[in-house]
Amino acid sequence: MANIGLEASDQLEVMRLHVDAALEALVEEELENDAGQVAELCASMLLAGGKRLRPLLILLAHEIAGGQDADEVMPLALAFELIHTATLVHDDINDEASMRRGVETIHSRAGLAKAVIAGDWLFVQGFGLGGRYEEKIVRLMAKCCADIAVAEFHQLDHVLNLATSPEDYLSIVRGKTAGPFASGCHAAGLVAGLSEQQAAGLGRFGMELGVAFQLVDDLLDLRGDERMGKPRGADVIEGKMTLPLIHALTLSHGKERQRLADIIEDFDDNDFDELMRLLERSDSLSYAEILVRTHLERAVLELDAFPDSQAKNLMLHVTNYVMDRHL
Amino acid sequence: MANIGLEASDQLEVMRLHVDAALEALVEEELENDAGQVAELCASMLLAGGKRLRPLLILLAHEIAGGQDADEVMPLALAFELIHTATLVHDDINDEASMRRGVETIHSRAGLAKAVIAGDWLFVQGFGLGGRYEEKIVRLMAKCCADIAVAEFHQLDHVLNLATSPEDYLSIVRGKTAGPFASGCHAAGLVAGLSEQQAAGLGRFGMELGVAFQLVDDLLDLRGDERMGKPRGADVIEGKMTLPLIHALTLSHGKERQRLADIIEDFDDNDFDELMRLLERSDSLSYAEILVRTHLERAVLELDAFPDSQAKNLMLHVTNYVMDRHL
Repeated sequence: MANIGLEASDQLEVMRLHVDAALEALVEEELENDAGQVAELCASMLLAGGKRLRPLLILLAHEIAGGQDADEVMPLALAFELIHTATLVHDDINDEASMRRGVETIHSRAGLAKAVIAGDWLFVQGFGLGGRYEEKIVRLMAKCCADIAVAEFHQLDHVLNLATSPEDYLSIVRGKTAGPFASGCHAAGLVAGLSEQQAAGLGRFGMELGVAFQLVDDLLDLRGDERMGKPRGADVIEGKMTLPLIHALTLSHGKERQRLADIIEDFDDNDFDELMRLLERSDSLSYAEILVRTHLERAVLELDAFPDSQAKNLMLHVTNYVMDRHL
Repeated sequence: MANIGLEASDQLEVMRLHVDAALEALVEEELENDAGQVAELCASMLLAGGKRLRPLLILLAHEIAGGQDADEVMPLALAFELIHTATLVHDDINDEASMRRGVETIHSRAGLAKAVIAGDWLFVQGFGLGGRYEEKIVRLMAKCCADIAVAEFHQLDHVLNLATSPEDYLSIVRGKTAGPFASGCHAAGLVAGLSEQQAAGLGRFGMELGVAFQLVDDLLDLRGDERMGKPRGADVIEGKMTLPLIHALTLSHGKERQRLADIIEDFDDNDFDELMRLLERSDSLSYAEILVRTHLERAVLELDAFPDSQAKNLMLHVTNYVMDRHL
């Protein structure tokens, strides 16, 4: 994977292209095996772009851990991307989302029944790729996916629940977003031959980065960023209790808290400026930003256990990218 | 697993109880790991009964193949039951079924979003159990699940399609019902240490038995059997093109075919007697029965490759049970 002489961002882009090519080859093989429409629908979503953040983290974690041959970890990287896409396909059903990665969602195109099955197909392809690895790695994958399910249940139960605590929020984020980052990096370390203890350090790196990543996502949703590919405030519309809202509800009192609660419970884009004023009055966006920095710092500290390398530099570049997304 | 002195049916019942106990232990462990409501909902469906036909076939195939220790194959048996239950949970969403295994379906109790996630959780638990086996076994599991998805797409595309051919029907049945029987028996043979070629014989046994099993299911649906736990003609109501219907549509002409088509396209329980008369006129039920016997005979022939054993006797007992269900 060494591409000496290229800028960090170009090196990451080269890796991303490798991931894309491997995903395309996988889909091509399935189509040749007569997987037909289910493979076509899944391919359209899988190959519609996306940052490939999870596969990149896995490839880099493997190299940081001393892995020499990217081919030995590529199936793991693809497995996590397939599973991630599976959760997106199933999430979009519930969120009634019509667009994802710039293309029409599968349930919009092919209906509920086929979207459920398509998500299953993506899960199964992911686990099929995992089969070549040791039992402990498959167990990490399965635990990660089971934790996603548990976190999604919690998230559904907390929709529009104004009593959601920061602990509830972090537990959901750890299960749904950060858990896969953690498991992917942890497993990549094991593939590279690290001890369980060393690999767990990469897992903690992934967990901290994942929490920061989700916090930034929540901030971008409020600030409105076209890179998100959805309208600003989409989380608020869906009733998702993100940390800035939870923080503001905790700190506000009297009429202000009532007004904040009313806006959240029946959100309309016209309320946007007022919502932002209320969030700023309790410094809730700054609070979330501080947490982003804290988690990113903790992530970077975990990398100190590993020798300096080109891969480690690239990983720090990715870490900065997560930070910069909301600047 | 030897329980000398017991009747075959009692021996199978003892095995079934072992499977139930292992499933209960698995769920118990997940609940202790704070899997919460998703585990509870899945447990209620998983432990609501069911014939445990897939796990029994896997345990017996393993023993027929010379496997000495049932514990080494039990996780595989559970994995197939978990995956089977996952497909039921997701199928029931699309079929809008309100009852399954005598309990309320998960989507009826907890809504669409949670039912989708619960099915995912069951899939993931199944693959997690598969992680202890060699790559070729995990690949068999993944291929089997991917084939289920492909077959389910075909089935959806053939709903109320009066031009569905017997080949279409068999391809759907092989993917959705018989494939898991085949993969389970094949994988069980590999776990017992059979060569790929020998294990494939057990796979063919499972495939033939699975086709016969589905044909009997289709006949029971038409004859109305309370053991099915759903009203007679449910398949016809759902627009599923089963072999008796396909056969009758092929052989009928003129007004009779038109009437048959009308009944199928807008089925009502009041049309039931007339539908049965039309099916009998083309001998379509007898035709399906002959196919059941043919596939069961082929299944039994595959077992000839293995030495006589108590497990083989029990497997023949299971084979007869499939046959007797519709007598």
